Amino acid sequence: MTQQQPVLALDVGGTKLAAGVVARDGTIQSYCQIETAVGEGPTAVVKRLLDLGEQAAIEAGWSGRGSAGAVEAGGSSRGAAEVPLAAVGVGCGGPLDPATGVILGPPGLPGWDAVPLGALVAERFGLPTYVENDATAAALGEYRWSGWGVENLVYLTVSTGFGGGIVASGKLFQGAARQGGELGHVVVDWQGRQCGCGARGCAEAYVSGTSIARRAAEAVAGSDSTLAGLAITAKDVADHARAGDPIARAVWDETTAMLGRMVAVIINVCEPELVVLGGGVTRAGAQLLDPVREAALRQAMPPAAAACDVVLSRHGEAVGVLGAAAIAYERLGES
Amino acid sequence: MTQQQPVLALDVGGTKLAAGVVARDGTIQSYCQIETAVGEGPTAVVKRLLDLGEQAAIEAGWSGRGSAGAVEAGGSSRGAAEVPLAAVGVGCGGPLDPATGVILGPPGLPGWDAVPLGALVAERFGLPTYVENDATAAALGEYRWSGWGVENLVYLTVSTGFGGGIVASGKLFQGAARQGGELGHVVVDWQGRQCGCGARGCAEAYVSGTSIARRAAEAVAGSDSTLAGLAITAKDVADHARAGDPIARAVWDETTAMLGRMVAVIINVCEPELVVLGGGVTRAGAQLLDPVREAALRQAMPPAAAACDVVLSRHGEAVGVLGAAAIAYERLGES
Repeated sequence: MTQQQPVLALDVGGTKLAAGVVARDGTIQSYCQIETAVGEGPTAVVKRLLDLGEQAAIEAGWSGRGSAGAVEAGGSSRGAAEVPLAAVGVGCGGPLDPATGVILGPPGLPGWDAVPLGALVAERFGLPTYVENDATAAALGEYRWSGWGVENLVYLTVSTGFGGGIVASGKLFQGAARQGGELGHVVVDWQGRQCGCGARGCAEAYVSGTSIARRAAEAVAGSDSTLAGLAITAKDVADHARAGDPIARAVWDETTAMLGRMVAVIINVCEPELVVLGGGVTRAGAQLLDPVREAALRQAMPPAAAACDVVLSRHGEAVGVLGAAAIAYERLGES
Repeated sequence: MTQQQPVLALDVGGTKLAAGVVARDGTIQSYCQIETAVGEGPTAVVKRLLDLGEQAAIEAGWSGRGSAGAVEAGGSSRGAAEVPLAAVGVGCGGPLDPATGVILGPPGLPGWDAVPLGALVAERFGLPTYVENDATAAALGEYRWSGWGVENLVYLTVSTGFGGGIVASGKLFQGAARQGGELGHVVVDWQGRQCGCGARGCAEAYVSGTSIARRAAEAVAGSDSTLAGLAITAKDVADHARAGDPIARAVWDETTAMLGRMVAVIINVCEPELVVLGGGVTRAGAQLLDPVREAALRQAMPPAAAACDVVLSRHGEAVGVLGAAAIAYERLGES
């Protein structure tokens, strides 16, 4: 019976929270999204996340607590669901502990130290709950439901933060520390900018949406850039670069050059067939992809580059929810 | 019967050639080593490599061409071996094609473009021959015969060149391009020194023996360093740094700092239980290991660092031969 049950998927980003019900074939049956408002702190944000998940579940026809199986097992008569859910998958910025579902102070979620997110979700929905690094989860979603036709891919999210996940030989890479690869913390400039992780020169300190905006603000200070006076976002940098502002253009070009170099490193180390770029910053489309792809494939070692391509995710904003759903199906062992 | 047969292992480095006969339990039954003299070009070097392999085989009791099985299959009466060999494993600098045994122009072996090394070795010894990137092979040797007791390790060789290999969940990582990870081409300084691969700022451009010597020569020029006037090697840099020469010390400290940062990247991306450092430059011992280990574990993401340690290989110069032998056993499918 659980073969037919969809899962609820929750995506906790530094900028937005998303929730959706996802069927086994990757069909998104409901989707809701709100701002994270990370400044409110973990207690308030988690409460809104849980409410959002319930809203998504109800929109998909769910009418109560727990799956049919869980309700029977518990002996409760409450919530005989019209559309029982099999589980909840949660994607969240890392580091976190997938075994316990505890969030371990991600740079993009200030104050989220030792937040027992998995337990809080499981308690609210009465369902088996599986927590994974959001970018790691998204890699599995890309593998499972994007039709790329490859067994080896790396997914990189250029979002509020910057991270990624690895699928090798059709399996999600976990690693000894079960972080699934901290790809945002590939160094590109060993004595460069301070990264939120404490080290210097990580890619995340340059190419995350936050870092792009911060670098632009520094570059614009005291200049006549069209960005001057704005509360600059990465989207502003892309837009003003496209419109011809030289300072926005310089910041954007450095971003794509550095991301291209970082992707070349990933191609060299992981030798995937595909590097998939997703996350909010990739809404810039070809303005991002073309220079990154060119730089990455030119600078990677020739045999590794020849075996690989660099593309944009086809899933847009839903990539996080699909990833969290893929984790739920994977952990349920039904794949 | 092949269960008891040892393998011949050949190790092609930019500085030395090594050959040995290795039993299934990792016992080295014979070992020979000569200088590569890479300037002589591939034809002359390969001939000396084959002679060296024959010498190692004969020292281990081999008395003729081909294994017992191969001789029977070929119908030849020549070489009824007292100690039949099961196969030949060859480790060589990459890029190369493990499927065909063709060497594809490694930076450390100038002129080795499209050298059919596997075919040449197979022809000489009349044995199944398996070619692999030397550092990739060494990772498997470390996994198989070092008693580390881990299932996930990364081996990095700091030798004439700089490279590495990955064992994940007890399996040698191959990659879509079958290069096993081009770990020497992890970038540390994206606009930095030109690397032999064509890109800028790869770790190999800083921490290989060749690069350490070159950086020292640049730093010493016009100075009163005790290194002045020497044809500087990486060993000289280590020795003079230990003796207190400030310029040698600065070059060495930058080397260990940069290698430490690179190892932190490897810990972040690959999340191994162990990073094993080998190769000629690691003969510096604690002078290399201590600062590299400290920097790597301090700068890697805390969960990944907590799951990992950084150590020196226990095999010294024989690590290349053991790696090549491990590849032979692996490919024979007897592991």
